[in-house]
Amino acid sequence: MLVREIPANNRKIINDPVYGFIHFPFELVFELVEHPYVQRLRNIKQLGLTSFVYPGANHTRFQHALGASFLMGTAIEIIRSKGHEITEEEAEAVTLAILLHDIGHGPFSHALEKSIIEDIEHEQISLLFMKELNKEYEGRLNLAIKIFTNSYAKKFLHQLVASQLDMDRLDYLRRDSFFTGVTEGAIGSDRIIKMLNIKNDELVIDVKGIYSIEKFLVARRLMYWQVYLHKTVLSAENLLVMILKRAKELSVQGEKLFGSPSLLFFLQNKISKESFSNPQNTQLLQLFSHLDDNDIMSAAKVWTTHPDRALSYLCKSLMERKLYRIEIKNKEFEAEKINLLKEKIRNHFGISMKETEYFLVSGEVSNNAYSSLDDRIKILMKNGETQDITEASDMLNLAVLSKTVKKYFLCYPKEIKNILDK
Amino acid sequence: MLVREIPANNRKIINDPVYGFIHFPFELVFELVEHPYVQRLRNIKQLGLTSFVYPGANHTRFQHALGASFLMGTAIEIIRSKGHEITEEEAEAVTLAILLHDIGHGPFSHALEKSIIEDIEHEQISLLFMKELNKEYEGRLNLAIKIFTNSYAKKFLHQLVASQLDMDRLDYLRRDSFFTGVTEGAIGSDRIIKMLNIKNDELVIDVKGIYSIEKFLVARRLMYWQVYLHKTVLSAENLLVMILKRAKELSVQGEKLFGSPSLLFFLQNKISKESFSNPQNTQLLQLFSHLDDNDIMSAAKVWTTHPDRALSYLCKSLMERKLYRIEIKNKEFEAEKINLLKEKIRNHFGISMKETEYFLVSGEVSNNAYSSLDDRIKILMKNGETQDITEASDMLNLAVLSKTVKKYFLCYPKEIKNILDK
Amino acid sequence: MLVREIPANNRKIINDPVYGFIHFPFELVFELVEHPYVQRLRNIKQLGLTSFVYPGANHTRFQHALGASFLMGTAIEIIRSKGHEITEEEAEAVTLAILLHDIGHGPFSHALEKSIIEDIEHEQISLLFMKELNKEYEGRLNLAIKIFTNSYAKKFLHQLVASQLDMDRLDYLRRDSFFTGVTEGAIGSDRIIKMLNIKNDELVIDVKGIYSIEKFLVARRLMYWQVYLHKTVLSAENLLVMILKRAKELSVQGEKLFGSPSLLFFLQNKISKESFSNPQNTQLLQLFSHLDDNDIMSAAKVWTTHPDRALSYLCKSLMERKLYRIEIKNKEFEAEKINLLKEKIRNHFGISMKETEYFLVSGEVSNNAYSSLDDRIKILMKNGETQDITEASDMLNLAVLSKTVKKYFLCYPKEIKNILDK
Amino acid sequence: MLVREIPANNRKIINDPVYGFIHFPFELVFELVEHPYVQRLRNIKQLGLTSFVYPGANHTRFQHALGASFLMGTAIEIIRSKGHEITEEEAEAVTLAILLHDIGHGPFSHALEKSIIEDIEHEQISLLFMKELNKEYEGRLNLAIKIFTNSYAKKFLHQLVASQLDMDRLDYLRRDSFFTGVTEGAIGSDRIIKMLNIKNDELVIDVKGIYSIEKFLVARRLMYWQVYLHKTVLSAENLLVMILKRAKELSVQGEKLFGSPSLLFFLQNKISKESFSNPQNTQLLQLFSHLDDNDIMSAAKVWTTHPDRALSYLCKSLMERKLYRIEIKNKEFEAEKINLLKEKIRNHFGISMKETEYFLVSGEVSNNAYSSLDDRIKILMKNGETQDITEASDMLNLAVLSKTVKKYFLCYPKEIKNILDK
Repeated sequence: MLVREIPANNRKIINDPVYGFIHFPFELVFELVEHPYVQRLRNIKQLGLTSFVYPGANHTRFQHALGASFLMGTAIEIIRSKGHEITEEEAEAVTLAILLHDIGHGPFSHALEKSIIEDIEHEQISLLFMKELNKEYEGRLNLAIKIFTNSYAKKFLHQLVASQLDMDRLDYLRRDSFFTGVTEGAIGSDRIIKMLNIKNDELVIDVKGIYSIEKFLVARRLMYWQVYLHKTVLSAENLLVMILKRAKELSVQGEKLFGSPSLLFFLQNKISKESFSNPQNTQLLQLFSHLDDNDIMSAAKVWTTHPDRALSYLCKSLMERKLYRIEIKNKEFEAEKINLLKEKIRNHFGISMKETEYFLVSGEVSNNAYSSLDDRIKILMKNGETQDITEASDMLNLAVLSKTVKKYFLCYPKEIKNILDK
Repeated sequence: MLVREIPANNRKIINDPVYGFIHFPFELVFELVEHPYVQRLRNIKQLGLTSFVYPGANHTRFQHALGASFLMGTAIEIIRSKGHEITEEEAEAVTLAILLHDIGHGPFSHALEKSIIEDIEHEQISLLFMKELNKEYEGRLNLAIKIFTNSYAKKFLHQLVASQLDMDRLDYLRRDSFFTGVTEGAIGSDRIIKMLNIKNDELVIDVKGIYSIEKFLVARRLMYWQVYLHKTVLSAENLLVMILKRAKELSVQGEKLFGSPSLLFFLQNKISKESFSNPQNTQLLQLFSHLDDNDIMSAAKVWTTHPDRALSYLCKSLMERKLYRIEIKNKEFEAEKINLLKEKIRNHFGISMKETEYFLVSGEVSNNAYSSLDDRIKILMKNGETQDITEASDMLNLAVLSKTVKKYFLCYPKEIKNILDK
Repeated sequence: MLVREIPANNRKIINDPVYGFIHFPFELVFELVEHPYVQRLRNIKQLGLTSFVYPGANHTRFQHALGASFLMGTAIEIIRSKGHEITEEEAEAVTLAILLHDIGHGPFSHALEKSIIEDIEHEQISLLFMKELNKEYEGRLNLAIKIFTNSYAKKFLHQLVASQLDMDRLDYLRRDSFFTGVTEGAIGSDRIIKMLNIKNDELVIDVKGIYSIEKFLVARRLMYWQVYLHKTVLSAENLLVMILKRAKELSVQGEKLFGSPSLLFFLQNKISKESFSNPQNTQLLQLFSHLDDNDIMSAAKVWTTHPDRALSYLCKSLMERKLYRIEIKNKEFEAEKINLLKEKIRNHFGISMKETEYFLVSGEVSNNAYSSLDDRIKILMKNGETQDITEASDMLNLAVLSKTVKKYFLCYPKEIKNILDK
Repeated sequence: MLVREIPANNRKIINDPVYGFIHFPFELVFELVEHPYVQRLRNIKQLGLTSFVYPGANHTRFQHALGASFLMGTAIEIIRSKGHEITEEEAEAVTLAILLHDIGHGPFSHALEKSIIEDIEHEQISLLFMKELNKEYEGRLNLAIKIFTNSYAKKFLHQLVASQLDMDRLDYLRRDSFFTGVTEGAIGSDRIIKMLNIKNDELVIDVKGIYSIEKFLVARRLMYWQVYLHKTVLSAENLLVMILKRAKELSVQGEKLFGSPSLLFFLQNKISKESFSNPQNTQLLQLFSHLDDNDIMSAAKVWTTHPDRALSYLCKSLMERKLYRIEIKNKEFEAEKINLLKEKIRNHFGISMKETEYFLVSGEVSNNAYSSLDDRIKILMKNGETQDITEASDMLNLAVLSKTVKKYFLCYPKEIKNILDK
């Protein structure tokens, strides 16, 4: 950032390829941007391994945090212009809440949470970080935390941070579309924000914006299938899950792997929600805050030459981008197919049946994270009443939108496919 | 890339946020894109530490290599359409040459070349990699190498790879402008390419394009001062130079630092041009090819807790983005000032005079890399003659453009500044 | 266009703000661009009076004709690249067909066809123009006419000119979105074209493109309601219908109005389909070709001072943009309401009941022009079969998309509303 | 505009393809937007006949007036944020001044001022309109007029309306670049505005913005030669000058031409500065306000069949875009050449020597309107002093920029060229 080097009146301006200039109106927000906990997000990619498919997708969680904060500023302005009060204190707090909402993300979160960390989600870690920062800042984050945890009276402020139309989503959809180059996924975040309104302490959309919402939902779906659940990305992520699982297994057995101290700590110890809530959590949080994409990618590259057959094979596959073949179906794969594949793998690689679990990964994905509509988008009709988008729009098949789509996948080395095909 | 997973006819299409779809017409070019030597560029940022100032600047040398190859395809088409022959073989070769032109870049090249590697530039390493690949591909890169080294008869093909208006520059200026968000630096690469022509085996610009060239030169200058030589970036890069120098010093003394094996190799050994030209160069090249941004950033983070005072101080400064204050002047800093600063530093940190060299960095930068005009831009006038841009344009002060501007800088911890000010 | 003044190799390049450079590969296409019949489209706005609501919407049918021709070139290239033959002759013909598809549009077509011209649609006049041109060009438009009238063997060529996914629609949706500034209506025309394919001589979309089609349909719907049927535009268009009707009525009665000769001809004579198919049609077509937006706007401005109360009132309303108030409902307006309004109008303006018909306009609009899906979008599934988009997409409520929505409107002077409200 | 039909809080929002949403903060500004004097600008193209070369250039003076007003809002905000006072009253007035600065433009101003109107420039007519409006609005435009005429104490407010960096220029350069598709001419208006500052009651640019100013000057020059003085546009404009001159000549002789009453008034009467300053100027202004592009284009089309050989020939050339060949040189054309051409023309068309003046046009153009630097751009240096851009930038050849370039042109029918060439 152009922080200390530029004249005072430009002090809090950052260049962003998506929005142009981003300006920080609150001193405290800016101080937090400079805090090491936020700065670490510079080293965590927003979309993990997605750059394997879309080479432009190297944007970081830091950029997203800044972008979402910027959108929050616009939203506050619009809502105020429609006659609803947001005090300066609330404005600062809700901006802090969005700046920090993803602070608990580790590197490659999806993979991490399925391998070396258990039972704890990044939202919970975000909260731990916020509390830690609140101590450091002597309670100045109290209101931000209340808003983040939805325990503040004005509910709509929480909705700006976490709901169907929160600034998180409005930024990441647009940003991910921008950096992947999947321009069709671009959403008109500024238009949607212009249509935000408040009714009965709830975030609603002016009826004029109904077509924009339809388009938003369709673009979101497009991003979901073309980016977030792209099969090649799934395959890469599952490779990483396997790598981290195997590395942890070996580490727990006492094998000393290459890795930064904090990576090794997470490999050698069982880390669950309880670990974080322990009195010693500060140190654990500290260790967690030292973990980023660099440690994992650097270690995996070194592990390509590790004597453990599974670990080195997996790491080589990832580093040289020789990803596993992935099959996707609407129902579970049959046991026979899986067994046949395992047999082939065992023969081909000359490994034990136990080891085959690193060469054949099955699992499921579902899009409920994106299409769940239990918190619904409400449209503010001309008569002053609100209507669920389901009723207000005749266009979208919302049953489909709100349904969780579950798909099953199976990943295994490409050479096995070739053997099968013979 | 969307390589193996997509239907045959889409096989070689990659999404790029700058140009949209990038399509690879040559099978061999595409095979090389998939080669580990090229894939490693995914882990090397095009602009090194520039993301400290422009958070969007996380694009990689891999993206740039693809983009420059794409522009080459357009240039070939335009030049052919103006009646100049480029055979299919030449087209493939010149595309290979541009794809691979930066393959020899290490992580944070500028810093690297001033610290742990000596006397060798990335162009030379690029050539070593190409020769290595040429062996692997049994001579199919012969022509590409000839073009790259300017030993092929048609000189203009080399100029497409390395000259004032090569595809390298046309891509990186546009791409760097795009990702930094410094939109004023955007150059109309497509317009310039539309104006390319050949005269006497030389790349020239149709006279209609003269204003575009003027604009290109001004935009380039803008990028130069606002991005490439941004003082905060200079400060960060010099921190990294100091870190690597200190780490090498300690390593050479036998101190065992944390680091990936290939990083440690480069820290523990003196590596110069001769090392690479040794018979064992393949292994050295191999080690070099395993080095990327992740190793350096991961190691520097670990070194923040190293007992060596200088190393840990420098690393902490970098990781927490507490960059050194930087002063820039048109003439050298006076010895007295430097001595005074050293004294203050020595007292403040309680260190030896020897150690102060890590806390006070002086040096110089010059923009000759960008504005040198010994290879000139030639304009093709209506009468069929060519004219140097200096004569053809009355607008630009080309004496200024072609002059090497040298500036002197001095970096030291911010707290010293505060002490001085008292 | 940069036609005669620029060097030979640039001869057929036109700058377009939407696509950048437009290049014309066929000599004959370019000759026709220069023909007065096509040049006249420079004086006919694509969106008629829409600039009353969106001030940027001044783009012309000429721009659209060029844009659609440009897209056709891309579509031809893509389809060929997927292994389907399009001969050079066919390519030229289908490009001619799209260039000329709208050549029969008069100024403010929608208004014109409801006022001074009867029973004839612009497509029919386009065909008359094409036949006329075909005579002039001695049969060189034969194939283009066959394709335009769908009497050529390869049906898919006609579909590129007229179907759900023709180049007409792909250009105008994107172009109208661009110039109105309704950026949400932007469609990814290049992406859709990339997904075009042929199956059983029919234009289809590769399955990968299904989300793009969903987005296309939603964007189209958005444009439909936010632009094409915007109520203020409807109100303005109906004012113009009334103006032309009244002017014709007066002219037929022998009143001599100000106007260009060809405008007066159309005002003084009854013009129907039969008139055009008469032997003397060439002269009629000639007169029609001399009619453009300028004649109508210039005349209406002069008519603001005409002694006929209705005519001058209507013209003043249009010229000073004091548009009628418009009400829109899903069912017909009740006779009582209309009668009450007429009564008020009669009293307020002191006019006869007969004259009130110029002060109160009722009518209906329906979106079937845009959402009719009898010619369906077909998706090419992975197994090689085609599926209707209705089945292939679970997302869109296609019953809604394909349903004709009819709405009823009522327009009357704003001051009457104020009287009513008292 | 979305005026009366949309909910109150959106009342003053207009969609603009260049800036997105344009919002009008002042009630009075918005009322004036709706005034017929401003609405008439909808029918006057910003770039006259430029759409003959760049088909997209159909944007109107109305769009420019809105755009410049929008930029003024941003400039006010930035200047205030740097600690300089602009009262609400001043903000309204300076916005009014920029909204109305071009209100005195007639259709095809450049051509008009050289043919049917004498000795009066549009700025003077703008002032007449403003005074007229000031009467209507009972003095509420007093301050706006003071600022426009530079008779208000705070000089920098006038500079925002008329100077090297006024909102007029910043809007039209960007807008003209946008609509012509000459993207290289795009200027970073938002960046320049961000750099505006005030020093000693003068508009200055923060030193950080120096490269942006360099780029602005180069882009402006590019627009100048590629758009504003494009030779084909010059040729078309000179045709129109000839048409209007000939039409006036015939009208003055008593010939009754087709035309709207206000066009005929200007053709039949000598109109100079004195005419406007006469007591009866209101009526003249009224007539002038009824003249727009439509009247001229509609009349010229009718005149294509006028018995006067010169008039009909000229009009046909314009309407069918068979423009005169244009030659451009740095010095005057020799008398012999001109005489030879006249002779050829006389023979070819069988006309009198007197009549040849309509078939051979010579004249000169100069770019001083754009590059004049007597009002200089001042840079605010770090030490608080201001420096002329000439000194502050070492890059630009400002002698060139500030020099008036005069060129001579000669236009005549293309067929004469062919005869000459034989």
